[in-house]
Amino acid sequence: MRAGIFHAPGNVSVETVPDPTIEQPTDAIVRVRRATVCGSDLWSYRGVTKWEDGWRTGHEFIGVVEEAGPGVRDLECGDEVVAPFSYCDNTCEFCRAGVQTSCVHAGFWGGNHDDGGQGEFVRVPMADGTLVRVPEPLAGDLSKLAALALITDVVPTGHHAAVRAGVRPGVTAVVVGDGAVGLCAVLGARRLGAERVIAVGHHAGRLEIARDFGADAIVDARDDEAVVARVHEETSGGAQCVLEAVGTQPSMNLAINLARPGGTVGFVGVPHTVGAIDLRQLFSNNVSLAGGVAPARAYIPLLLDELAAGGHDATPVLDMTVPLDRLGDGFVAMDGRTAIKVLLEVSD
Amino acid sequence: MRAGIFHAPGNVSVETVPDPTIEQPTDAIVRVRRATVCGSDLWSYRGVTKWEDGWRTGHEFIGVVEEAGPGVRDLECGDEVVAPFSYCDNTCEFCRAGVQTSCVHAGFWGGNHDDGGQGEFVRVPMADGTLVRVPEPLAGDLSKLAALALITDVVPTGHHAAVRAGVRPGVTAVVVGDGAVGLCAVLGARRLGAERVIAVGHHAGRLEIARDFGADAIVDARDDEAVVARVHEETSGGAQCVLEAVGTQPSMNLAINLARPGGTVGFVGVPHTVGAIDLRQLFSNNVSLAGGVAPARAYIPLLLDELAAGGHDATPVLDMTVPLDRLGDGFVAMDGRTAIKVLLEVSD
Repeated sequence: MRAGIFHAPGNVSVETVPDPTIEQPTDAIVRVRRATVCGSDLWSYRGVTKWEDGWRTGHEFIGVVEEAGPGVRDLECGDEVVAPFSYCDNTCEFCRAGVQTSCVHAGFWGGNHDDGGQGEFVRVPMADGTLVRVPEPLAGDLSKLAALALITDVVPTGHHAAVRAGVRPGVTAVVVGDGAVGLCAVLGARRLGAERVIAVGHHAGRLEIARDFGADAIVDARDDEAVVARVHEETSGGAQCVLEAVGTQPSMNLAINLARPGGTVGFVGVPHTVGAIDLRQLFSNNVSLAGGVAPARAYIPLLLDELAAGGHDATPVLDMTVPLDRLGDGFVAMDGRTAIKVLLEVSD
Repeated sequence: MRAGIFHAPGNVSVETVPDPTIEQPTDAIVRVRRATVCGSDLWSYRGVTKWEDGWRTGHEFIGVVEEAGPGVRDLECGDEVVAPFSYCDNTCEFCRAGVQTSCVHAGFWGGNHDDGGQGEFVRVPMADGTLVRVPEPLAGDLSKLAALALITDVVPTGHHAAVRAGVRPGVTAVVVGDGAVGLCAVLGARRLGAERVIAVGHHAGRLEIARDFGADAIVDARDDEAVVARVHEETSGGAQCVLEAVGTQPSMNLAINLARPGGTVGFVGVPHTVGAIDLRQLFSNNVSLAGGVAPARAYIPLLLDELAAGGHDATPVLDMTVPLDRLGDGFVAMDGRTAIKVLLEVSD
């Protein structure tokens, strides 16, 4: 099969590798129909996090069950499925508590042990626990593949930001970041009933999508002090809920400074800067920092039901579509910020 | 009157200063009966936080209303009162939300603007908002003065750690720190219904008090790795609720590492190290960091009612009592860890 391979920062290609096979009775092989490039793929692409020559790329994919091991009970060949960006047994104590990313058997796609999502096939461990079957009327609807692909990661991650920030009816929510996750966090804040959503970013085109997704106000983020002043003015002293979707130190500290006393920052940007965050500010204002890697598996059924019922569609964040073999072009576009998010057409 | 004055690190004395007078109609003058020395007083005493020559000391006091301004409605001369460690109007939006430490008119005792708690009299701004009248049968009971003095700060701060860590019936709570606040955090965890409380510290005598306060297990904290291993073993993967009551970077990171995936660290130790906390660990495990300066004013009525009903008594943390003029000895003892917490007898 063809699959994305990382070689060095700035060097990702699609090559022929061995087809995966069933290794454990509970494995399934999924034929990938659509995959996507994630903002977090860029950290290794840019050499910020270590990734080694020859490792597989990608962790966002949807497809069709091609083969199921003898221990797979709930899925059969031909089932259309959505994969969360990490696998899990969905039965352990942490899974039952809704933290499937901390499953005692958790693992992440790609790297040197597992198939990446950016390839023609993926061996899926613990298929019954990991995969979610696409419900009617979405199953069989080719027009929904792009929307489904977003439910693997960015839509649940944006939702998680809203959940962790404690968004509830009546609050004002501020979203920091206008990447795909930030835009999906706007959807998340709306889904949970925020009365008002303020989007902070610095790309006019992306902020327009934020508005389409339900943001009431848009704040340009180029000058942090001005952002703080503007948001504090709009909220009379800060927002109850701040959704941080970038993961850098300046962004985290900006988010902390936008929160109201007693408020909460829900952070879902992978924290690549472990430097000093403003603990004194958190302390003085009783601001909570409640973030984490999204337990996508926990939210996918809800998000599929919502999509099936004609709800939100996050596809405006997908502004570039290429076949799998042009994966490298997708990385270049996202790295250069000429694309928000890239959809890979892998198979029909 | 006599009052504590800071001169330089390691140099605190009691001197004669002008008696306070009513400055605003809503002020009251309180005659102090008991005051205490706080662990947080030690930060300036040790030169870690800036405090200037001539500034007043102390923020924990109880007493009797000596004089009330014409705008004071709810209190009268002779009322026995408890003061929270910061003053507030108790009517603004933040006060109504239970974050009185973020009151739009909030202020902290001592320094160069306000009377400190370690003195014979204190001018109390916004007396109706700030002070809480001591209820029957505590009023008039001299034997309860020490217990009342602890309700100004350490008891509500320990309670806040439990509130912010999300302690609820059935959880296991781990308390990091065996100072007065940590010990009161054990009481807080018990008050909120923790099924099991594990106290982490490194002073045998203090940990014995933790046991008396309701800790089920005691872990010696000298070796962080051993503490993590022991707590993870006792809790099968970490505690749902961790109460951090120290405020140093190692203590904060220890607390984060003791939390279970999806758990919460409630931190109330004033964070004097704003260095790197383990954000990646928070992120990977969906651990929340929810702390802050305790809105003591919010909890004092509840804590007084509990004490009046014969509930907890935190006085075992008071292991040294001196008259006000021996304030310096109290600082020396707490700085040298020969006393957990010092009670000052100011007037009868």
